[in-house]
Amino acid sequence: MTDIVVDAMEALDLTQKPPTEEENEEEDFVDPWNVVGTSATGIAYEKIIKKFGSSSIDSALIERFEKVTGKPAHHLLKRGVFFSHRDLHSILTLHEQGKPFYLYTGRGPSSTSIHMGHLIPFLFTKWLQEVFNVPLVIQLTDDEKFIWKNLKMEEAQKLAVENAKDIIALGFDIEKTFIFSDLQFVGQCPAFYQNMVRIQKCVNFNQVKSIFGFTDSDSIGKISFPATQAAPAFSSSFPFIFGDRKNVPCLIPCAIDQDPYFRMTRDVAPRLGYIKPALIHSTFFPALQGAQMKMSASDGNSSIFLTDTPKILKAKINKYAFSGGQTSVEEHRRLGGDCDVDVSYKYLMFFLEDDFRLEEIRKNYSSGAMLTGELKQELITVLTPIITAHQERRKTVTDEIVKQFMTPRAMKCGF
Amino acid sequence: MTDIVVDAMEALDLTQKPPTEEENEEEDFVDPWNVVGTSATGIAYEKIIKKFGSSSIDSALIERFEKVTGKPAHHLLKRGVFFSHRDLHSILTLHEQGKPFYLYTGRGPSSTSIHMGHLIPFLFTKWLQEVFNVPLVIQLTDDEKFIWKNLKMEEAQKLAVENAKDIIALGFDIEKTFIFSDLQFVGQCPAFYQNMVRIQKCVNFNQVKSIFGFTDSDSIGKISFPATQAAPAFSSSFPFIFGDRKNVPCLIPCAIDQDPYFRMTRDVAPRLGYIKPALIHSTFFPALQGAQMKMSASDGNSSIFLTDTPKILKAKINKYAFSGGQTSVEEHRRLGGDCDVDVSYKYLMFFLEDDFRLEEIRKNYSSGAMLTGELKQELITVLTPIITAHQERRKTVTDEIVKQFMTPRAMKCGF
Repeated sequence: MTDIVVDAMEALDLTQKPPTEEENEEEDFVDPWNVVGTSATGIAYEKIIKKFGSSSIDSALIERFEKVTGKPAHHLLKRGVFFSHRDLHSILTLHEQGKPFYLYTGRGPSSTSIHMGHLIPFLFTKWLQEVFNVPLVIQLTDDEKFIWKNLKMEEAQKLAVENAKDIIALGFDIEKTFIFSDLQFVGQCPAFYQNMVRIQKCVNFNQVKSIFGFTDSDSIGKISFPATQAAPAFSSSFPFIFGDRKNVPCLIPCAIDQDPYFRMTRDVAPRLGYIKPALIHSTFFPALQGAQMKMSASDGNSSIFLTDTPKILKAKINKYAFSGGQTSVEEHRRLGGDCDVDVSYKYLMFFLEDDFRLEEIRKNYSSGAMLTGELKQELITVLTPIITAHQERRKTVTDEIVKQFMTPRAMKCGF
Repeated sequence: MTDIVVDAMEALDLTQKPPTEEENEEEDFVDPWNVVGTSATGIAYEKIIKKFGSSSIDSALIERFEKVTGKPAHHLLKRGVFFSHRDLHSILTLHEQGKPFYLYTGRGPSSTSIHMGHLIPFLFTKWLQEVFNVPLVIQLTDDEKFIWKNLKMEEAQKLAVENAKDIIALGFDIEKTFIFSDLQFVGQCPAFYQNMVRIQKCVNFNQVKSIFGFTDSDSIGKISFPATQAAPAFSSSFPFIFGDRKNVPCLIPCAIDQDPYFRMTRDVAPRLGYIKPALIHSTFFPALQGAQMKMSASDGNSSIFLTDTPKILKAKINKYAFSGGQTSVEEHRRLGGDCDVDVSYKYLMFFLEDDFRLEEIRKNYSSGAMLTGELKQELITVLTPIITAHQERRKTVTDEIVKQFMTPRAMKCGF
């Protein structure tokens, strides 16, 4: 799966030149529905930044982040998992000036069980919310999943509630967090639907065709959906949170594959008199089989699910986690393992917070002092308590608590 | 403006053959945005019936209508203003069996003042509601007008309220009538939005392109709007009216130019497990200048507005109403006038309820015994009290009454 052109992504950024044929060769393909890498080390994220026209998160920005917030940077930021941004400097300036903004993230609820990769934007968003003390809106696009998948509407809505339970179990503050499902909420909030219609008026079929690759045989539901994902980026969609405050800026943490939606949103914003949302993009969480692909909720063995038992977790890692080790112990001792392709090591980069221990593992595995089985055991030791604790917390999330999180209401965030 | 093909309208009716080139010559053009006739006698409605695949309302159907309802047929039905239908027999059968159905009509609120032509479907719908004692939902598509026109959203919403006042002034029963504006209501009713999404999933761009003539440069708001106009045809969109009753059938009185929306709706219905809505179609109310065109709210002299004073009304009819009379009194006495093209006569067909008097006028004008000036005076005498009475009633329609009509609530209609 090489040679797939990603220039469709650049449609709204007219300052960029489309890639030449040469550039198209051996390129990774990234859009909201497909992520296909061409190299074992994973997606070439620097190339994507160039293509999408976003900016790298460099050490100067991380330094400013720490200075402005007075907090040490999150390990996902320091380790380059959140690697790209748009207008993050403006958000930091707002915080410096004591001015409000809000966070928006979301998820398409396509399965009852969410996997470790799905956690990443939520864990990071939770940290951002704590650091900045701002309101957070979380969109569950059950309408999207209903339209794209062979799902009954009731099933899509049920998945949204199940996913909300996992999200709530991560510990979001109910006084600052509003979770909504489109199929329920659009029909509860005229201001939200009005923004959807405003956005729909500004975007034509040519644009969504070039941004998302839609064709004439795609449903009008697919064609108009981008406006639904764009609407939460404008604060006037949530009058119960922002009241009379006009144009509260928005920061969207998301995986880089969602950027096309928000490039469209940023293109539309000034025409509606709205502020462009800022973005902070993550890389993908690799599949157990290797970093070429994003984990898939539909392939049970490509992912570690939050519902996996410790036994299944251990078996999956031992059986499927792609190894950067050598073919024999002797050879491994001699040549060392390759952390750049080793999935267990990559997973530790996401979930092992202790920088010192991670560096130790890297050194030992690279030198050959640590064997693949030992590395896998490190990962099992890190993930098992995370998953079992999550499962325990999820049990305490009742339907009543979900209902509270999903009820439109005022937030307590100092403004 | 001849030679415009209307085969785009037939997209969903695959049993029909596209018109031959010969058939295309000198054809009337009718879609939801344009009505262009090719003959002074008006649109060739029988041809439209054939093209659209609907059925004529013949004397046998009118007879059955009178038998089933026990009421004499409305003059707009007897005189062929409502001339076409789909599944009206099924609706009459339901009424015979004492089974429920409901009425749905609507209007795109494009100007603060509505003209006489706009009244026709509402006057007829009011009569249907009284005869059948059924609930009625009236959709004001302010979202459509916002998307199509150079209008601010607030203006579109204001027009919806102004138009609602005129509609309410016709005397609709508040206990059986729910009026809604999309920009307000979609955000108040999850079930309505859910049906919009269900419909959007079933219709692709190819279909709306061929039905409505959309192109790649049309906004995704236009492209998805047909689902919004289709949704009220399904009773599950209004749970507060129909409660647990599933699939209450719907009858839609509308001008024939709205049929494309409902052909699409009827195509989609069985795929959603819903009943196809029945339809009863009216001809167009002619412009003062002649029957080739529908009245236009944007050309003040092509229409008589409900806000016109008696003086303006008189002046417009005398100055603009296209005459079927001869060039001199002598010639007129000798040859007589032509009721088939005379706009004043046509207007009397719409608004003079007295069959006997109308026939007398027709005879006298055709024979030359009645002059054009006298015919125009007849029309002025008929319309003046209708308009002044309307203006009086409209004054009594307060914002509070509008709010009551537009509040989602249960209806009192025997079920």
